[in-house]
Amino acid sequence: MEITDLQIGILGGGQLGRMVIQSAIDFNLNIHIIDPDPNAPCKDIAQSFTVGKLTDYDDVMAFGKDKDLITIEIENVNTDALKELQKMGKKVFPQPEIIELIQDKRKQKTFYKANRIPTADFVLTEDLADLKTHGYFLPGVHKLGKEGYDGRGVQVIRTEADLDKGFDKPSLLEKLIDFEKEISVIVSRNESGDIACFPVVELVFHKEANLVEYLFAPAEIPAKVEEAAYDLAKDVIDKLDMVGILAVEMFLTKDGDILVNEIAPRTHNSGHHTIEANITSQFEQHLRAILNLPQGATDLVVPAAMVNVLGEEGYTGNAKYQGINDLMAMEGVHLHLYGKKVTKPFRKMGHVTVTAKDAQQLKATVDKVKKTSKVIA
Amino acid sequence: MEITDLQIGILGGGQLGRMVIQSAIDFNLNIHIIDPDPNAPCKDIAQSFTVGKLTDYDDVMAFGKDKDLITIEIENVNTDALKELQKMGKKVFPQPEIIELIQDKRKQKTFYKANRIPTADFVLTEDLADLKTHGYFLPGVHKLGKEGYDGRGVQVIRTEADLDKGFDKPSLLEKLIDFEKEISVIVSRNESGDIACFPVVELVFHKEANLVEYLFAPAEIPAKVEEAAYDLAKDVIDKLDMVGILAVEMFLTKDGDILVNEIAPRTHNSGHHTIEANITSQFEQHLRAILNLPQGATDLVVPAAMVNVLGEEGYTGNAKYQGINDLMAMEGVHLHLYGKKVTKPFRKMGHVTVTAKDAQQLKATVDKVKKTSKVIA
Repeated sequence: MEITDLQIGILGGGQLGRMVIQSAIDFNLNIHIIDPDPNAPCKDIAQSFTVGKLTDYDDVMAFGKDKDLITIEIENVNTDALKELQKMGKKVFPQPEIIELIQDKRKQKTFYKANRIPTADFVLTEDLADLKTHGYFLPGVHKLGKEGYDGRGVQVIRTEADLDKGFDKPSLLEKLIDFEKEISVIVSRNESGDIACFPVVELVFHKEANLVEYLFAPAEIPAKVEEAAYDLAKDVIDKLDMVGILAVEMFLTKDGDILVNEIAPRTHNSGHHTIEANITSQFEQHLRAILNLPQGATDLVVPAAMVNVLGEEGYTGNAKYQGINDLMAMEGVHLHLYGKKVTKPFRKMGHVTVTAKDAQQLKATVDKVKKTSKVIA
Repeated sequence: MEITDLQIGILGGGQLGRMVIQSAIDFNLNIHIIDPDPNAPCKDIAQSFTVGKLTDYDDVMAFGKDKDLITIEIENVNTDALKELQKMGKKVFPQPEIIELIQDKRKQKTFYKANRIPTADFVLTEDLADLKTHGYFLPGVHKLGKEGYDGRGVQVIRTEADLDKGFDKPSLLEKLIDFEKEISVIVSRNESGDIACFPVVELVFHKEANLVEYLFAPAEIPAKVEEAAYDLAKDVIDKLDMVGILAVEMFLTKDGDILVNEIAPRTHNSGHHTIEANITSQFEQHLRAILNLPQGATDLVVPAAMVNVLGEEGYTGNAKYQGINDLMAMEGVHLHLYGKKVTKPFRKMGHVTVTAKDAQQLKATVDKVKKTSKVIA
């Protein structure tokens, strides 16, 4: 069957699905979306848009039954339905077993350990009482096994006095890593087993808020570390035997070691700059991977940074964008608005990619971007 | 009003409209399309899609009456309706008077002459009998005043024996220019009068078929010629007082002079490579111009070429794409399929942008691309 005849379904209709559709238009692909929100960012640009619950077996089955290929843009989906659809002969990428593994951080960490993938030491905790027996392990990070997302379900525990802040559900306690840098590699693999890595991205944290402030590429790391990061990302996707895009977030420790922090089996916030800055974007690469097409060249053509456009604190309601004209007047500033009607504090409303001749100009523009735009209600 | 609240209408739903929509998604704009073909490339990705005749007064009025801003992706539209919509307070860019000027090549050439814009010498001819009185003017090119498009309505007349091949309708006879190169500059202008030029593109002709084979940027021309080309493009858009994108195709003569050949008041085939190769694409620039946003930086980030994917001779029917996998395996090859169901000989079915480190690698890849893909039925 030609790729243009396939009916492709995506579970989730947020910004990641939206940017996949923008890319899919180039290949004239048929993309269908299911999302619980009738106003989801994909609603007007998908070939068809179904309102349904991604965690509901029946909704996912009803959506998937007339598709040829199914993929995701969010991990929190019903994998039993995906397994059943796979049995019916449909392609499901990433594979349902991998989505399950990643839905549960305890399984994810156990997988790393079993497969000798370097990661921070950890212990599993069943409940709060259990956690309290692991005071010797501090300082640590307590992570809820399931349903943590975008900062939720993660609690730093520095001393025994903080143990009460932990989760009373199956979780894991991880050693707090005093990292030098946090980096990310997006790796992809098609069904034939071809693997390609995007150049390493460096995440810059806001010192007070402990939030990712922006990302830039190329990362300012030694060539040896860079090579090690690629090897690690390839090793993870290979051992998972996964098809699709996998984002591998890593800690570069002060000793120069690299540890896997978290992985996401889908297009990822740390790859948005690839739309403008790389030969192939992560969104096209994901399509190439799941369609078993050759993996595209990933070279960075121009230095780039990515700044998330977040809902301003203190505003909830219909989104208004301040400073758009000023943003657009800055050289090398590329605006992406996700089409979300309602803003909330820290909601991802869009992003800005900055391209520049060198790292210095890049950082200067990033600073200006952060001061210029605001999403209010 | 915020740009995300505007209802924007485009007359025409072909590949140019499609690529405008792909870009408009970044700004979360509402784009509505009217096209006579119910299967036009824009049908699934526009906010709304209306089937209607672009040259019909009533169809254009009905489409435009609830829009705030109207633009075009093809010149052959009903300008009386556009003038009426303008009177109703809607923004119409490019302005209807400019569309009219460009619909008639006789008016276009007369405008150049009146405004001292350098162009090939010409005489107006009313019919075939009139043409035959201008044998002294040969060798020349006879061009139909109205409704010529994509090679139709143009006839080279080298000797008096060929005069019978001319048009029996109002036309113009232009001196045949023995040009060194054909080049193109895409220029844009917003309502505030800000003007930006994209780097000069060079058109490479197929020697036997007398067809544009491919384009590449940057053009291999002296800096002095480049500057003169920008000055000329800016002069044309300024004298037209136009808002939007204007493609200015020019001859570089063997004497080093630059003459305007033809202009198009819309996004253009000679700017497709800007999607991958320039900081701002021509499609985003058009949106910036008609929304009166600052004009984006136009710098070329990487050398690029553009090859049209045309319907193969001898095939008419439902399109099949040969060699897609091989194309996608080539480094720096970016495929754009326009989603046209039916192929015909020489129909524009898509294009390929090639990006490469240097001109040599660019041309090597272009040669491979031309041999690799075919659109058949």
